[in-house]
Parts: sequence; structure tokens; C-alpha cells
Amino acid sequence: MINERLKKQMDFLLEIDKVKNIFRMTYVGDKSRHENDAEHSWHLGIMAFMLSEYVDKDIDVNKVMKMVLIHDLIEIYAGDTFAFDEKALVDKSEREEKSACKLFSLLPEDQGEEFKSLWEEFELCETKEAEYASMLDRLQPLLLNYMTEGGSWKEHNISKEKIYKRNEITLKKGPKEFVDLINYVVDDCVEKGYIK
Amino acid sequence: MINERLKKQMDFLLEIDKVKNIFRMTYVGDKSRHENDAEHSWHLGIMAFMLSEYVDKDIDVNKVMKMVLIHDLIEIYAGDTFAFDEKALVDKSEREEKSACKLFSLLPEDQGEEFKSLWEEFELCETKEAEYASMLDRLQPLLLNYMTEGGSWKEHNISKEKIYKRNEITLKKGPKEFVDLINYVVDDCVEKGYIK
Repeated sequence: MINERLKKQMDFLLEIDKVKNIFRMTYVGDKSRHENDAEHSWHLGIMAFMLSEYVDKDIDVNKVMKMVLIHDLIEIYAGDTFAFDEKALVDKSEREEKSACKLFSLLPEDQGEEFKSLWEEFELCETKEAEYASMLDRLQPLLLNYMTEGGSWKEHNISKEKIYKRNEITLKKGPKEFVDLINYVVDDCVEKGYIK
Repeated sequence: MINERLKKQMDFLLEIDKVKNIFRMTYVGDKSRHENDAEHSWHLGIMAFMLSEYVDKDIDVNKVMKMVLIHDLIEIYAGDTFAFDEKALVDKSEREEKSACKLFSLLPEDQGEEFKSLWEEFELCETKEAEYASMLDRLQPLLLNYMTEGGSWKEHNISKEKIYKRNEITLKKGPKEFVDLINYVVDDCVEKGYIK
């Protein structure tokens, strides 16, 4: 027999397996297919500790890692919302809040609250940890779109201005290195004709 | 312009994107396809903090999270070795050591050493952190094989004894809850005829 608490945790682990089949607009690096939420989150997890040297020393990087690993779980019931789809963005919050309640209630109560609170912190984007997580969440698809010669940007005619808008938090509050990187990628994409 | 250090880190991030196309023998939960290394590592990252309540309080869970997120990167050049393929296991270490040197040298030297050292610690499996990471690395496919009605075990006629052998570290050193879980899953798989 296994105890009730562990059983709930196992049910949760198996339920979140579903994000492996939630596909994003972004392509994987070899452009063979779209990237899924699990892969995206894994990439962010590595970026969180790999790039921590560029952000404030007092940022709790461990918390950021947890945050990015779980930030897209709510898409299991809410679906992926394309960052540039203004229509779908209208009821995104509502859909995701419902999804979060449903999903995190699978866990033992204390742990469900901990996970939900991590997700909410990410969404609210008011703490330094959430801001850093949010910068990474925007930087990773930027890198993949660059690697795939414009990728989903080109496919959906995304303008330079929209990309800057999407990376606003980094441009306003991010480290110089990240800002330089965004500018470099966007300029090069324009020069190469991937975006306008 | 972006600085040389950041450029190396970006090249590394784009190179490791390749693990999204390294497929394991294990299936994803809905059995629609094999799981890849990035998805597997993401799942382990969440398990590392979610299940930490069952292991020693002095285990550095943050280190375990880093370890599991990067532990399979060396498969980019070494390929995935099926845990039950005794022939391929013979030169696994050598292939993986070469791969590690090649891959981690993409990073700035200090960071490459940090990553290589994390991977080596995982491989040697002598610290409490590496042992915990290793338990999770074996527990996650066990759960997926259970969920997929025997999955890759059934497909390759893997016996109950081999599964116990594969989970030896947990059975010997793991918390009671993990041991109970393994026994429960294996017994149920035998009863349901998924394995012999």
C-alpha cells in the first residue's frame, strides 16, 4: 500500500505529463516541429541558474527555477495562448485561474497552495523572482525564433515593435546584457529579412 | 554587440535544444509517442522539489534540481542508452565522458567546469544529492511505464527482477515511501499481466 499523500502527488505527476502534448507556436531549433510546454519549461529551468550571474545577487534562483518549471502547467486545461493573439489574451487570466484551481487541488492541500502561490507570483510579476522568470520566458522563444530564421514571428508576420513590446519587462528592468541581446537579435532578424 | 561570455552561453543554450529530439524508450502518458530527454528532465526537476519531504533535510534540493535538468545533456553526442540494453551499457561511460567534454567546453570555462562537475557528481552517485537524483531518474520512467500499461517494459519483455535491479539504489537507500511505491507498482503490473 502507498500512503494517501504520496498517491495524490503521483496522480499530480501523471496529470502534468499532459503538458508534453501542449504545443506552442515556437519551433524547436531544427524547425522540425513545434515546441511543447515541458520542453520550454526545461529550457527555462537551465537558463534560470545559468544566467543568474547577470541579475541581482539577492534573487532566490531556486524559487525562480521552481516557478519556471511549473509556470505553464495551467495550460493543461486552459490551452496555450499565443503571445501575439490579442483576442485570446482577453479571457486568458480567467481561463488560467480556473485551470490552476482544478490542477493544484490534485495535490495535498499544503502543497497545492504552495504551487498555486508560486504560479500566482509568476503571473502577478511583482517580485524580483517573478520578473526574472518572466524575462527568461520571453528570452527563450526569442532565441528559438532567431535560430529558426524568424520561425513563428515570420509565420505570423510579427513586427519588430511587437517583439519589443513582448520583451518590455527586460528592456525596462533587465540587465544590460539581456537588453543588448534582444537588440542584437531583433536588428539581425530585420537585416536578414525574417521580420519587418 | 553582445559580449563574448554571453555569446558562449547562448551557443550552449541553442546546442542543448537538441535533447528535445533525443527520444527514450519510455512513452509519454497517453502512449502516443516516446518521451524525449528534455521532457524527462523537466519532469524530474519538478519531482526533485515536490518529493523532497521524503528525503534527508540536509540534502541540497537546488543542486539536485540543477543535476536532473542537465543529467542527460551528454546524450546529444552519446545518444540514449536503454537502461536494459546490456551490450550498449559496456562503453556507455566512455562515450558519455567524451560527449561531456565536447558539450561543456562550449560554455565559458568556469561555467563549463561547474556543469561538468554537476554531471560527474550525478554519474558517480556517491553524494546524497546524486543518490536522490538517481532515485528520481528511475522512479519517473517507472511511473510512466505503469501509466502506459507496461509501456517499454512490456515491449522489451523486461522482468520484475530487472526492474528491481534498476531501482536498486532506492530499494537499498531510499525512503520507505519510495520503496512502497515501487513494490506497489511492480506487484500491480505483474497482477495485470504487463510484466512477468
